[in-house]
Amino acid sequence: MMRQITDIEGVFADGAHVGIKPSGKKDLAFIYVPNAVASAGVFTQNKCCGANITQTKKALKTTTLKAVIVNSGNSNAATGKKGMENCRRMAQKAAHCLGLSMNEVGIASTGIIGVQLDIDTVEAGIERLLTNKHMRAGSHAAEAIMTTDLFQKVVYKEKKIGKKIIKVAGIAKGSGMIEPNMATMLGFLVTNIDIEPSLFQKWFKDAVDQSFNMISVDTDTSTSDMVLAFATGEHKISLVDKEQCDAYTSLLLDCCIDLAKQIVKDGEGATKLIECQVSGAATHRDARFIAKSVINSPLVKTAIYGEDANWGRLLMAVGKTPGIKINKDKLSFSFGTEMVFSHGEPVVFDRKKITSLLKKDTIVIHIDLGLSSGNATAWGCDLTQRYIEINVDYN
Amino acid sequence: MMRQITDIEGVFADGAHVGIKPSGKKDLAFIYVPNAVASAGVFTQNKCCGANITQTKKALKTTTLKAVIVNSGNSNAATGKKGMENCRRMAQKAAHCLGLSMNEVGIASTGIIGVQLDIDTVEAGIERLLTNKHMRAGSHAAEAIMTTDLFQKVVYKEKKIGKKIIKVAGIAKGSGMIEPNMATMLGFLVTNIDIEPSLFQKWFKDAVDQSFNMISVDTDTSTSDMVLAFATGEHKISLVDKEQCDAYTSLLLDCCIDLAKQIVKDGEGATKLIECQVSGAATHRDARFIAKSVINSPLVKTAIYGEDANWGRLLMAVGKTPGIKINKDKLSFSFGTEMVFSHGEPVVFDRKKITSLLKKDTIVIHIDLGLSSGNATAWGCDLTQRYIEINVDYN
Repeated sequence: MMRQITDIEGVFADGAHVGIKPSGKKDLAFIYVPNAVASAGVFTQNKCCGANITQTKKALKTTTLKAVIVNSGNSNAATGKKGMENCRRMAQKAAHCLGLSMNEVGIASTGIIGVQLDIDTVEAGIERLLTNKHMRAGSHAAEAIMTTDLFQKVVYKEKKIGKKIIKVAGIAKGSGMIEPNMATMLGFLVTNIDIEPSLFQKWFKDAVDQSFNMISVDTDTSTSDMVLAFATGEHKISLVDKEQCDAYTSLLLDCCIDLAKQIVKDGEGATKLIECQVSGAATHRDARFIAKSVINSPLVKTAIYGEDANWGRLLMAVGKTPGIKINKDKLSFSFGTEMVFSHGEPVVFDRKKITSLLKKDTIVIHIDLGLSSGNATAWGCDLTQRYIEINVDYN
Repeated sequence: MMRQITDIEGVFADGAHVGIKPSGKKDLAFIYVPNAVASAGVFTQNKCCGANITQTKKALKTTTLKAVIVNSGNSNAATGKKGMENCRRMAQKAAHCLGLSMNEVGIASTGIIGVQLDIDTVEAGIERLLTNKHMRAGSHAAEAIMTTDLFQKVVYKEKKIGKKIIKVAGIAKGSGMIEPNMATMLGFLVTNIDIEPSLFQKWFKDAVDQSFNMISVDTDTSTSDMVLAFATGEHKISLVDKEQCDAYTSLLLDCCIDLAKQIVKDGEGATKLIECQVSGAATHRDARFIAKSVINSPLVKTAIYGEDANWGRLLMAVGKTPGIKINKDKLSFSFGTEMVFSHGEPVVFDRKKITSLLKKDTIVIHIDLGLSSGNATAWGCDLTQRYIEINVDYN
């Protein structure tokens, strides 16, 4: 069986249906790390963010979070003053049940925008769920944070660093409204290290920038989403040992990329994962922008859905990216190992080979700008009729 | 019958099938304004632009264009040095047939990217078509520039300015790969005024910025597209008379908006035109960005397709716009005349009324930011299964 976040010592979690989703599916989860020594968070950059974002950002600035309460089915966004008050009530209730201060509890909400929570139901649900606050049912939590997701997103990795087994585990939800600047999603990670909070925030932010912030399903950025991480304080990483630090940050990044790719694979209506690797850009920033532009292009996405080696659309998507440096005569493109465009000229390629590459579940596109050493990778998905069907009537 | 560009004195045009499109449909057009006193152009901002863009931009800088040759079926983009050479050959051939210098002929190409033109066929076609260079078959030209367009896009308007009847007429093509910074399209306008070229360029650029540059079908910006305008030199506008100048620039803008809206209505798979009016923004630039963000959001577009008053998605689309000023508590939204969100709080609205508004062909969304006087309007279309079908296999 897949290992869960609760397989890390000192991490408790559970999920249940408390009455928010009319479907009767699980809609409330908690993660509780009573001895957390550090917590870190990255939040949506949507300026119309939900009440819970404002609240949790503030809490994280004040102290180390020891728990997060997540409800699905209602994002409590665009709910005005009452929404803010309801969010505070959720935090107060959870803090009371867990014996924490209100600022030690993060709140995450996902689901429909603009509808008030039935706060009495939610409060009663929190109380019921936290009666067993030492539950280790990580997969219930992974399930309870889902909205239109088709599968649970879970990661667990460990690595020997120095003499210790260092662990990182996480859960996430995604599906639609997935784009940059905090990919539109929820993600919660736990790790058994002992670390100073500001360094943990830095490392986590770096990992998020190369993973969750490099995915997109539909270019739409949600108002409510966040990624949080908790450190249980079990093992110290030697900060003077560069090798240990690198080993840890790469473990953390691997876990974030793993969850991020799971989110894209489960993008609404998606049938294929698109990985766009950009190299040779003038700067790292240029490479990021181009990789994002390619995976976000509806015409690239529909071509990949159609298993069509229409590299002209790659050219279009590279060229349309604002504010980047390009020399048309140095551009090269490949699908997987097959080059289709080299130094600004079309290449005669083996269409049969390309077609068989395009039939796979994961399509790797490589774009070389031939300018300098800037590189980046972004992940997206194809655009299908099913995306439309899912989104024509969400209510 | 609809009046055409060739109903303006001194404007000649025709279109025919010369062998570029395998379908046998018209694929070559010309517009010829032998006595043009001014020409103006706005071009794609895609950095990987087609050979014809480079060529026509240069020509326009050198002199006043007297003609444009347009081929559909092949964009001659991403075709390297040979593509550039082929584009020059097209201009040379047309110049020769019309008795012009090469720099007096614009070249526009639209269609598949990355495939070399059969230049012998194209040259023979130009020669054949220009044998009757005084044809006044504007609607043949409008037809010959189409690619996946379902209908011809034609405008003709006149207005008495001073004592003269001032006319503006135009044709356009669009369909997919339609976005900003020169909406991805071709447009050609003619007008019977006498004007100094640099002022004509300024007026035309202003009109394009408020029309073609404010539409989007799918956020993708083509490599090949342009809008050109020709002035026949018939009537002078009094430049010292502000009223006359304003009357003319508003006539020009009306024609550009008319064509731009036709393009959006014929967006690939579109069933509805979305008009997003933004007011109260901190700046005009903010208003433009927000209007564009709304009409470009896949989740807004699918909601409109589903006739669903999901204003939460409007909030998301406004909030995700990068680099703009927002105060959540001052935001208001309406669908048509029906307010759904006022000063940061949800409004109880008449769902039946909204539903009947959403059943119309044109959906007007109004967004007020309550900050200052910045305003802008953008036009987009809904996103449907048909868009996917059209684009999964374009070849």
